[in-house]
Amino acid sequence: MTERWLGDMDPQTFRRWGHRLVDWMAGYLAAVEKYPVLSPVTPGGVRRQCDPAAPERPEDFDAIFADFESVVLPGITHWNHPSFFAYLPSTGSAPGILGEFLIAGLNVNGMLWRTAPAATELEEVVLDWLRQMLGLPEAFWGVLQDTASVASLCAIAAARDGVAGLQVGESGLAGRPLIPRLRLYTSQEAHSSIDKAGRILGLGQSNVRRIATDADYRMDPAALERAIQEDLRAGMRPFCVVATAGTTSTTSVDPLDEIATISARHGLWLHVDAAYAGAAALLPEKRHLFGGWERADSIVVNPHKWLFTPIDCSALLTRRPEALRAALGVLPEYLRTEEGDRASVHNLMDYGVALGRRFRALKLWIVLRYFGREGIAERIQEHIRLAQLFASGVDADPDFERMAPVPFSTVCFRYRPGDMAERLRGAKPEEASRIEGFLDDFNESLLNRLNACGKLFLSHTRLNGRYTLRFAVGNIRTTESHVRAAWHEIRTMAAELDEELRVGDLMF
Amino acid sequence: MTERWLGDMDPQTFRRWGHRLVDWMAGYLAAVEKYPVLSPVTPGGVRRQCDPAAPERPEDFDAIFADFESVVLPGITHWNHPSFFAYLPSTGSAPGILGEFLIAGLNVNGMLWRTAPAATELEEVVLDWLRQMLGLPEAFWGVLQDTASVASLCAIAAARDGVAGLQVGESGLAGRPLIPRLRLYTSQEAHSSIDKAGRILGLGQSNVRRIATDADYRMDPAALERAIQEDLRAGMRPFCVVATAGTTSTTSVDPLDEIATISARHGLWLHVDAAYAGAAALLPEKRHLFGGWERADSIVVNPHKWLFTPIDCSALLTRRPEALRAALGVLPEYLRTEEGDRASVHNLMDYGVALGRRFRALKLWIVLRYFGREGIAERIQEHIRLAQLFASGVDADPDFERMAPVPFSTVCFRYRPGDMAERLRGAKPEEASRIEGFLDDFNESLLNRLNACGKLFLSHTRLNGRYTLRFAVGNIRTTESHVRAAWHEIRTMAAELDEELRVGDLMF
Repeated sequence: MTERWLGDMDPQTFRRWGHRLVDWMAGYLAAVEKYPVLSPVTPGGVRRQCDPAAPERPEDFDAIFADFESVVLPGITHWNHPSFFAYLPSTGSAPGILGEFLIAGLNVNGMLWRTAPAATELEEVVLDWLRQMLGLPEAFWGVLQDTASVASLCAIAAARDGVAGLQVGESGLAGRPLIPRLRLYTSQEAHSSIDKAGRILGLGQSNVRRIATDADYRMDPAALERAIQEDLRAGMRPFCVVATAGTTSTTSVDPLDEIATISARHGLWLHVDAAYAGAAALLPEKRHLFGGWERADSIVVNPHKWLFTPIDCSALLTRRPEALRAALGVLPEYLRTEEGDRASVHNLMDYGVALGRRFRALKLWIVLRYFGREGIAERIQEHIRLAQLFASGVDADPDFERMAPVPFSTVCFRYRPGDMAERLRGAKPEEASRIEGFLDDFNESLLNRLNACGKLFLSHTRLNGRYTLRFAVGNIRTTESHVRAAWHEIRTMAAELDEELRVGDLMF
Repeated sequence: MTERWLGDMDPQTFRRWGHRLVDWMAGYLAAVEKYPVLSPVTPGGVRRQCDPAAPERPEDFDAIFADFESVVLPGITHWNHPSFFAYLPSTGSAPGILGEFLIAGLNVNGMLWRTAPAATELEEVVLDWLRQMLGLPEAFWGVLQDTASVASLCAIAAARDGVAGLQVGESGLAGRPLIPRLRLYTSQEAHSSIDKAGRILGLGQSNVRRIATDADYRMDPAALERAIQEDLRAGMRPFCVVATAGTTSTTSVDPLDEIATISARHGLWLHVDAAYAGAAALLPEKRHLFGGWERADSIVVNPHKWLFTPIDCSALLTRRPEALRAALGVLPEYLRTEEGDRASVHNLMDYGVALGRRFRALKLWIVLRYFGREGIAERIQEHIRLAQLFASGVDADPDFERMAPVPFSTVCFRYRPGDMAERLRGAKPEEASRIEGFLDDFNESLLNRLNACGKLFLSHTRLNGRYTLRFAVGNIRTTESHVRAAWHEIRTMAAELDEELRVGDLMF
């Protein structure tokens, strides 16, 4: 009997497959347009091709990779596709991929300074670079989280635990009759992760008070002030405001300066969710939209959204790291280190939920250096230009309607043919509602049909109750020709669908 | 003026650097032993070599990689080093690295089924494979989280929100005079992440009640029962028990079956933290240690610990996915999809904190297939054998003392020379305490000296107040010769240190 190899894959095989995957990946990225953007599989389509029984014996990488190509790949929605215009941009880049490869190879856990000093120190350096690029003052210190959902949760936890006199971290919120309801304010357009944070943190979703927005989907500061006053009169305890710079539906920006003033007046923690749009603060011409965020207690900006860094990578910038640590730092004996007691040494596990920490800073360090502020800014500028180009197409077409301003690279619009626009003007409520219902159904059908064709992928939202299509530009491979082709496809399909649906529908 | 390239790194450069990095990585993994395990840098040592100013202009990848080698690498503590024996094992593997490369290249966000159907379905398939390998019943359904800290947080959130009649998710815990204190039970040896979850979830650390352990560091079920009764009499509301299968200090296993019975009797959610040791349930000869976990509501096992999958990758297995979804599912309009309403389709964002989700299932799928259950079991068996070998060395040496049983691959021990053992027997309390104090200091010095030599890396804990060294085996590259060399180094350094410290210390 020969002794079995109990180690890792042998180096020759690793080299061979590593090289093959590099070539495969280069080919994939260069030719990603040949794939349908949205995966055409139906539910169960991938699972059905997998062996339901756990693998018992080792398999060659060849067999595994063959299944990757034949089973996994057809089930992929290609976020790398230049005609992926759905949700908000989330784009990697080749230097970011190389960074991930190094991260996986080193496989360090940067929970403590000593378990990977470079992971901790590079994180602090690179987040200070990001701070500079965003034009934020030196008082902001940064730490990476996986996603904005978690970054916002951490910020709100720090806000909650910082409420004077309550000692929530130690004593909790339940069974304490003297503790009032803690109230958090955010706009009606804020991201669902704020609701989720409210639930997880034991505040309760009903205490995440949604503030009305203006016609441009920005939080109304007067309504915020009224809500706070009302809650104070009712004996509740306001403690936090979450403003959004770049909402998920329309990318609107709350009036940060006014909100900062209100937050300061009432002593509330101000958290700014700039997960997507924060990247645009790199551009001098867009910086003014962020005026006031420098007064926030914390800000989240996701490099994995619009800073060309592979998912996941979310930067939490705060001027109150000690509050974050007070809420999230728990130090058992087995994680105690000599150097951990020094003020200059941060154990980054103390500033997040997870103990284990990937070396995410490495990919961000590579991406920021490879492109430089200049290169990143140019790409973001180009995406904004392309979105404006698309918006101008919508504006110029009598059969389409733009549904919101376009401060960045996302356009909200819908099909609304000229004759219906006409009829909507001056229609009685019942008639208007019938037409609007038709338009909602029409646009939903249009979206489904567009996405099914595989040439492009859009998503939707509802604005003032109306079904609205969203066109978000941000992929590093997207060029003007993709945007023009998408606009052409949308117009063509809308016209076809219009013809189909109106035949036999004598109402219209 | 020429138009600037606004896309990604060009394919030629990506190929060139991809190939270079593959070769570099193969070389690194083959020769990782040439590096000191614990990075020798001092605090600030990496930061000082970084440009404090954010990069303005693009840089060549050559320059970036040169800095990676000269600045980053010396600041790395090499978790890949076969003589990394600290904390609990967390080991990647070459197939896992290749998996991460593919994950980064595809860069999908599997938040919704449609945003990457293969990511969702492969995750369900591969977690069912894991369930089978662990010998758990079909009632368990699995979802990946980043780390066990987050997985446990999610499980406890589901437990909390499932408490009948309270509607915590909607109404929260604060300002509700009729809500009692919610109590969670876990052993004195449980991981710090349970305290952290208690804080974050608004339960308060003081309501995470630590239950005494027996002489082998296992939760005492009678003490658990008494604590629950006591809390019930005091009008509190017990809702959850977190048992540990493989505690962080000694890898002890709580008596899961008895705890499951108590949990069931009181209607408490039972969560089992098997982050590290769960992997050993792959071995038929270790399965008995987990008896009773099949009755748990949820279990966490980390493939990134002892299943050869790069960090991060944590499997949360639960028989109550609907409770997880009730606690964590929040569906805004912009994430609504047709297929999302079907019972057979899971949008995995509904089962975790983060909205954005990396395609972690891909690396686990590759690792489980590449090694197979058989190959993984053999490696885990070998690690256990090596730890037993080390333990037998400790047991046979009169100058060392083993501090806890060794059910898996981690040995707790300390230097305690024969003559002191003699003197401790029958010493008066004051004298005993003086000797114990000396031993604590000695072992701390020994640990620091061992770790500073760069040849191996150990960590510590305290058991019954005594400073204890920990020797954890689990790296895929660790062989018997590394364990023998480590034991030799430990004995040699202990003898040297003994000689140094006793000279001039006339007390001993």
